[in-house]
Amino acid sequence: MTEFKKTDKTTITRLPKRGTYDQDTIYSILDEALYCTLSWSDEGQSFQIPTGFCRIGNKLYIHGSVGSHYMRLLAGKKLPVCIGVTLIDGLVLARSAFHHSVNYRSVVLFSRPELVSEPDEAYAALEVFTNKVCPGRWDDVRKPTDNEWKATMVLSFLIEEVSAKVRSGPPKDDEEDYSMDVWAGVQPLSLVRGALIADPALKPGVAVPAYLKS
Amino acid sequence: MTEFKKTDKTTITRLPKRGTYDQDTIYSILDEALYCTLSWSDEGQSFQIPTGFCRIGNKLYIHGSVGSHYMRLLAGKKLPVCIGVTLIDGLVLARSAFHHSVNYRSVVLFSRPELVSEPDEAYAALEVFTNKVCPGRWDDVRKPTDNEWKATMVLSFLIEEVSAKVRSGPPKDDEEDYSMDVWAGVQPLSLVRGALIADPALKPGVAVPAYLKS
Repeated sequence: MTEFKKTDKTTITRLPKRGTYDQDTIYSILDEALYCTLSWSDEGQSFQIPTGFCRIGNKLYIHGSVGSHYMRLLAGKKLPVCIGVTLIDGLVLARSAFHHSVNYRSVVLFSRPELVSEPDEAYAALEVFTNKVCPGRWDDVRKPTDNEWKATMVLSFLIEEVSAKVRSGPPKDDEEDYSMDVWAGVQPLSLVRGALIADPALKPGVAVPAYLKS
Repeated sequence: MTEFKKTDKTTITRLPKRGTYDQDTIYSILDEALYCTLSWSDEGQSFQIPTGFCRIGNKLYIHGSVGSHYMRLLAGKKLPVCIGVTLIDGLVLARSAFHHSVNYRSVVLFSRPELVSEPDEAYAALEVFTNKVCPGRWDDVRKPTDNEWKATMVLSFLIEEVSAKVRSGPPKDDEEDYSMDVWAGVQPLSLVRGALIADPALKPGVAVPAYLKS
């Protein structure tokens, strides 16, 4: 088991038994999440934005428009950022209001942006990101043109100062409450992919590809 | 239509047509989301945490343990915060990699914490929060004891400096790409509540309540 090293910023003080620094756990949460929340600080004020991302090895990648204010700010100043990912797995319904909780898996990463200038690395980031969101999609679609690449900025963040927090399982009530006539348990929550909605402008005769049917 | 006033921090510059300041839209996103991401700045470093919340009128409420480091920090220093909420509605599958997108509804709020010291206001925040996550739950469960109230801190945030961003509908491709033999459209995503899992320690004979069956 590979563990990330705790730092002042990543040492979990509140409910520390839920904390983990295990690399496999952290990578699996990052690889499942469809977006992250990226926050930074500017003159004492925090800002945040939700954005898609992917992981390759020990780096997290985001991309955006070269015209994006925050991408330029991050890349230009290499500002320290905080990146968070949260997966909600269920509502934990206890007998007491006080012990209600949520089953979740979350990651918090502290890092700094690096502008990805190597074309192969940028290409890989976009390919992995596209296939993460929709496995098999990259091979099927028109690849970026030179002008589209010029309009795209890719940033990487080293995954090093990072922690995860996980809660799972049934509620934990006070001993005397277990005899109450209140239903208790977990209501699972999951992000479900629904039936495909074809673009009204879809070219007639174009079938749904196999990778989208499963 | 009531609109929030734009400020320097909430004026949307990137894809401004997706931006909205409409109160009903912003409140509906806040009322649907099960958690928010709260970020703050400490000596130039941004921190963030996911947390449950609810809205009552023009205030957003969170609660936590009085032993929580960040709750104490926020309440003590009344730090400026950024609070974000994101609902992912679907993957937008375009014919080109470049035009892939996501249908989403997001809110970003800038505010400062106020410690809720009025018992009625704190009670209402917990009741509304519990019923938001699980409608009908509050009446069914054991209410907080005096000691539990003493262990709980409730913070409010005025909803005033706020904006939303919404994308919906099919992909928008470059004109010349519409003739490609690539399937395009939207794959809807939704957070679905699964079959209830009873606590293994559930008292025999306690049935699932009606409000949990729908």
